[in-house]
Amino acid sequence: MTTVGILGGGQLARMMALSGAPLGLRFRVLDNVADACAGQFAPMIVGDYTDQAALAEFAAQVDVATFDFENVPAESAQWLAERVPVFPKPRALAVAQDRLAEKTLFRELGIPVPDFADIASREALQAAVAELGTPCILKTRRLGYDGKGQFRIKTPAGVDAAWDALGAQAATVGLILEGFVHFQRELSVVAVRGRDGEFRAWPLTENWHVDGVLSASLAPASVDAAMQATALSHARKLAEALDYVGVFALELFCRDGELLANELAPRVHNSGHWTIEGSETSQFQNHLRAVLGLPLGDTRMVGLACMLNWIGAMPDANAVLREAGGHWHDYGKEPRAGRKVGHATLRADSAAELAAALARVGDALGREAQVAPVVARLA
Amino acid sequence: MTTVGILGGGQLARMMALSGAPLGLRFRVLDNVADACAGQFAPMIVGDYTDQAALAEFAAQVDVATFDFENVPAESAQWLAERVPVFPKPRALAVAQDRLAEKTLFRELGIPVPDFADIASREALQAAVAELGTPCILKTRRLGYDGKGQFRIKTPAGVDAAWDALGAQAATVGLILEGFVHFQRELSVVAVRGRDGEFRAWPLTENWHVDGVLSASLAPASVDAAMQATALSHARKLAEALDYVGVFALELFCRDGELLANELAPRVHNSGHWTIEGSETSQFQNHLRAVLGLPLGDTRMVGLACMLNWIGAMPDANAVLREAGGHWHDYGKEPRAGRKVGHATLRADSAAELAAALARVGDALGREAQVAPVVARLA
Repeated sequence: MTTVGILGGGQLARMMALSGAPLGLRFRVLDNVADACAGQFAPMIVGDYTDQAALAEFAAQVDVATFDFENVPAESAQWLAERVPVFPKPRALAVAQDRLAEKTLFRELGIPVPDFADIASREALQAAVAELGTPCILKTRRLGYDGKGQFRIKTPAGVDAAWDALGAQAATVGLILEGFVHFQRELSVVAVRGRDGEFRAWPLTENWHVDGVLSASLAPASVDAAMQATALSHARKLAEALDYVGVFALELFCRDGELLANELAPRVHNSGHWTIEGSETSQFQNHLRAVLGLPLGDTRMVGLACMLNWIGAMPDANAVLREAGGHWHDYGKEPRAGRKVGHATLRADSAAELAAALARVGDALGREAQVAPVVARLA
Repeated sequence: MTTVGILGGGQLARMMALSGAPLGLRFRVLDNVADACAGQFAPMIVGDYTDQAALAEFAAQVDVATFDFENVPAESAQWLAERVPVFPKPRALAVAQDRLAEKTLFRELGIPVPDFADIASREALQAAVAELGTPCILKTRRLGYDGKGQFRIKTPAGVDAAWDALGAQAATVGLILEGFVHFQRELSVVAVRGRDGEFRAWPLTENWHVDGVLSASLAPASVDAAMQATALSHARKLAEALDYVGVFALELFCRDGELLANELAPRVHNSGHWTIEGSETSQFQNHLRAVLGLPLGDTRMVGLACMLNWIGAMPDANAVLREAGGHWHDYGKEPRAGRKVGHATLRADSAAELAAALARVGDALGREAQVAPVVARLA
């Protein structure tokens, strides 16, 4: 009997436990919130990620550990890794937690990235804004999540306001200036690498964000074979450089036919939720297979799939359950503004069928705006 | 938040909970064994099905109740039904628990059944054996499971031995004599009926038993459209007659092109496990949708699927996980002779691919005999 420990008890841990149960696995979740939704289906330890007593209790109960959350302090991950096998390894986590280290690695590997600069002072910011041009975005190097710790600089005159807002953090978490990318599309590669180095990826996914939060994903993204191959090659290089084990997502901007790497998420990813019903093997099960050193599952798709995120509160399930390819995912969370509380996946054998189902669901739920860009893409 | 109670905490309850979690459901399981495997993923109450205190605790915690086990005493089901909605309704359970009532209903509905007779005395047995011919089988009307409470009568001279073995039960649970059916194939319809009467069925499945226990299932069964329609019509008539709500299986013998009803299982069924990966909607989720009055999911198949049961102990998972369409189900049980501890499902887009995958798995696991009849059928 193998027990898998998951740091973080949100919906990713929950779906991981549900998907890993058929492998005969048991789970232990560590979260600092007692009602974390994974706790409904897996025994939980409540404690802070920096609480060594909680970490020790967790370590004593698990055979291997992984994450549903990338901002676990690197020291906690390292402490744990000295006691039980931890995948992905703490170094991958550390790189993904630091925008500067991440973008520097992209560049070293020959993966195109938007312009960026390390910012240590007001003067450095002034100079970098002059070089990168406006608009651009000043960000903390670490612990940014869904648009927090960011300041947009619209004109060169905005430098002072940006420094006043975030400058104090230059000496603590560090700052990075990123050039603004006028992209046409956002894409992601969700991929998995095994302990033995085997690499597999699901088809490229197109994503739409609203207020910085994922709203919809469509797979496969409508891209040519060359772009698909380029994206996969980027993902593979990255995984190999980090000796990565498990599932990760590489978020990409597509600007005038060129792919620019935006971010590495060192975990199962919201843009891969469609794999539960849309692929022979879900990202959740493949993550566990990788972490445990089991053979990786087939990542082929069956038809097309669109994932719609539910933010704040769950809409009426019936509109989705009535659809032949409609699948519902309620994370069992209390409603709260801005919170990811669930998603739906619509699967179909053709683009026309998928577009029609999306239009019906959007109409029934009064969410025409959410489905519209996907329907337009499918036309 | 809806909590579903399940009477019985075996693998069916476990897979039901895993499949119902995405609907935002919570579960409570009642089982008389503390380490029942559903308890690994759902909170459990340990108590006997006839223990009114345990039933009352269970009833107080659930919004609706269902079963993973058909031999729950009818009085317990009835007691519960007076307190919370219970699906399927106790009457369907009662009919399925009584071989005589079940076969009488089949006959009343015009569903062909093997010959049978109610047996109250040694003389009645003597007369019925003369009428039905040998071989035939004397069975208890109730509580038979996987070959227990049965006595095969090979020649007319065997009447006394049969009566000596089971006769005492004529006055308690009752006895039935069943004619022996020289069938060529065993088939099952797994179907679902909603609270509103909507009826859906998965494609007919062919089953192979070893020592009275299911060994392998193949879907879709290779039958012509007329036989498929007849089987579905039988299942629908039965569901309507019982005002059935939820998933059930109708087991059928195919003898010289004719279908004979063998047994009604008033629950999700081992021969429907392939629906987890092989169908748009699994039997487990559709059972819950029906019980909750939600829209039923699509029962269409994707390709072909074969389920292999693991009895006694789990074999090596790698042989199955290496297959592109290989899916593993370990129920998290301790090994024990004769116990269903898990299953595997192999999915493929063509019969040739499925046969090849089965042959590889059978070879890798030294289970050539288990896969052989399925491979032969696919040839």
